[in-house]
Amino acid sequence: MKTIFSAEHVLQDVKSEFYGGKWVDAFEIPRRAELVLAEVKRAGLGPVIAQDSFGLAPVLAVHDAAFVHFLEGAWEAWKAEAGTIPAYPNIWPPRRSRMIPTVRPGAELGRYVVDMSSPILEGTWNAVRAAVDCALTGAKLINQGETAAFALCRPPGHHAGRDYFGGYCFLNNAAIAAQYFRDQGASRVAVLDIDYHHGNGTQDIFYDRGDVLTVSIHGDPVQEYPYYIGFADEIGEGAGQRTNLNLPLPWGSDYSVWNAALDQALERIRAFAPDRLVVSLGVDTFKDDPISHFRLKEQDYAQIGARIATVGVPVLFVMEGGYAIEAIGVNAVNVLRGFEAAPTQIAWTP
Amino acid sequence: MKTIFSAEHVLQDVKSEFYGGKWVDAFEIPRRAELVLAEVKRAGLGPVIAQDSFGLAPVLAVHDAAFVHFLEGAWEAWKAEAGTIPAYPNIWPPRRSRMIPTVRPGAELGRYVVDMSSPILEGTWNAVRAAVDCALTGAKLINQGETAAFALCRPPGHHAGRDYFGGYCFLNNAAIAAQYFRDQGASRVAVLDIDYHHGNGTQDIFYDRGDVLTVSIHGDPVQEYPYYIGFADEIGEGAGQRTNLNLPLPWGSDYSVWNAALDQALERIRAFAPDRLVVSLGVDTFKDDPISHFRLKEQDYAQIGARIATVGVPVLFVMEGGYAIEAIGVNAVNVLRGFEAAPTQIAWTP
Ligand SMILES: [Zn+2]
Ligand SMILES: [Zn+2]
Repeated sequence: MKTIFSAEHVLQDVKSEFYGGKWVDAFEIPRRAELVLAEVKRAGLGPVIAQDSFGLAPVLAVHDAAFVHFLEGAWEAWKAEAGTIPAYPNIWPPRRSRMIPTVRPGAELGRYVVDMSSPILEGTWNAVRAAVDCALTGAKLINQGETAAFALCRPPGHHAGRDYFGGYCFLNNAAIAAQYFRDQGASRVAVLDIDYHHGNGTQDIFYDRGDVLTVSIHGDPVQEYPYYIGFADEIGEGAGQRTNLNLPLPWGSDYSVWNAALDQALERIRAFAPDRLVVSLGVDTFKDDPISHFRLKEQDYAQIGARIATVGVPVLFVMEGGYAIEAIGVNAVNVLRGFEAAPTQIAWTP
Repeated sequence: MKTIFSAEHVLQDVKSEFYGGKWVDAFEIPRRAELVLAEVKRAGLGPVIAQDSFGLAPVLAVHDAAFVHFLEGAWEAWKAEAGTIPAYPNIWPPRRSRMIPTVRPGAELGRYVVDMSSPILEGTWNAVRAAVDCALTGAKLINQGETAAFALCRPPGHHAGRDYFGGYCFLNNAAIAAQYFRDQGASRVAVLDIDYHHGNGTQDIFYDRGDVLTVSIHGDPVQEYPYYIGFADEIGEGAGQRTNLNLPLPWGSDYSVWNAALDQALERIRAFAPDRLVVSLGVDTFKDDPISHFRLKEQDYAQIGARIATVGVPVLFVMEGGYAIEAIGVNAVNVLRGFEAAPTQIAWTP
């Protein structure tokens, strides 16, 4: 399959995140994408191509306009008040407050961000736009007849909600691609999020919609980021009733436990009968991941890819997390190779 | 008048707050209260007494129980996971998430705090409890026949809402005292907040109640902390319709502008005919305050006190902000001396 990659990802180059009352070295760093790219090439997965430009319309189809425009202008506004240091928040809205714009960049930042791990830098907006375009380019390739594509997005996206960002994510690459599929004619789209962390942004974006199924297998939010969302009883609302499936698992879960959750996920996806599947591909489920607590091994990832292929519809893989740097390439590409090696017939429809 | 003061305030001894992307020296420091106390004594305002103990019942009468119990156990829980470093948040709930408890101290901290200026330390809970007791002791003195009392509370309280804390505030001393007045028989209580910053916590606590009038004169939240709340169109709701009055003023406002807002405030308070008045006494309206942008002068504060006396009901003064350290004592005590020197008759009723 083709890999879509943008060198602009390096513009999001964070040095530190604040965690547990102190600064720690950043986990979401440029080297992550470079190592995945190197493994794509080493393994001969297929051509690596650059992204096309899609503009902001596909972004605005899932994200709040005020939020998107905030992100677009955030660095310039911040710099004018705080100087050229990374934009980390120091205040955010209390419960029961309204969305009234202020003239203070720090207050606007706090309105839209939900943690201290996702600073806005000079190059953030360009990196984020490029990542979105990688996902959209992959979706376009699939609509042109590819049965799979790998959007090697960085920064990741699945924690970005309709009108908020955090967890290293700014715009939701996977959700934007899923909406693009819908807008280009797909009747139903499923998003399967296999990152260690709950795909809260994707859930948030499609929570009240019946045309996009969102399924996530993840660390139980009682123990794990993003904490406040991702519980099993969140099943969607309104037209989206029963089109959100959360499969939280406890710390220490190994592949046998994880795979049983994947059974449930795939069963639900098959029942939904989507035209397209988007996979939020995080490999922080790996046993050696420094910020996660599952126990998957290298060889498990190829099986995951093969099992995803059994859905039988074209799949857009979108890179999300994975912080065991030396293993991230092998694990991610193992999913993709496992998918390609599977005997399953993929039914492509326009 | 009597001043109620607790030496335990020193237990909240913050070194740094995070602002504008970097750590800066803390503004809300123990020396603030010490300098106000020194001026109380120097000026001969009256006896300085210790606080009584009131327990948690008066706190739980205005604050959410889960929030109060979080604060009570926050340091021990944090210490067990993060060690003995100050508890600053690194994540907080996104919009549209629910209040489901987690097992992670950092996630619980982020659920309840709204900024990076209000860390929880080993002594925070005891300092906070003592400050509440100072306010309640002042209220009790008034119910016993005093026409005024000065609760020299530290940490301050007016930014603490029903179920959140921030802005150097943890529990809302003024709101707890106002509720105490109600519970002890007052039919109506007014809270006048003259701190530079909007009394958002007090507004939040009484927003849907008609028995407590909340009035605040403050820096326009479009420009100023707490940003997301404190606008003029927030007039209360339900039974509290028209019992919240916000008088936001722009940066640079001097006493003539400020005093015109006080006219409106006092007119509304007189029309409400309260039995008791609580004044959230911040003096960060001072021209030299390092974090504020009004232009009041030393001599203006005595006039403010005299004007408050014209309401003609017993007044509990509760210390809030003020960060021009060398002037904080004189300015605060000027309000109290101006009040005492006023010719107005205070109507005391049981
Ligand atoms: Zn993750
Ligand atoms: Zn203040």
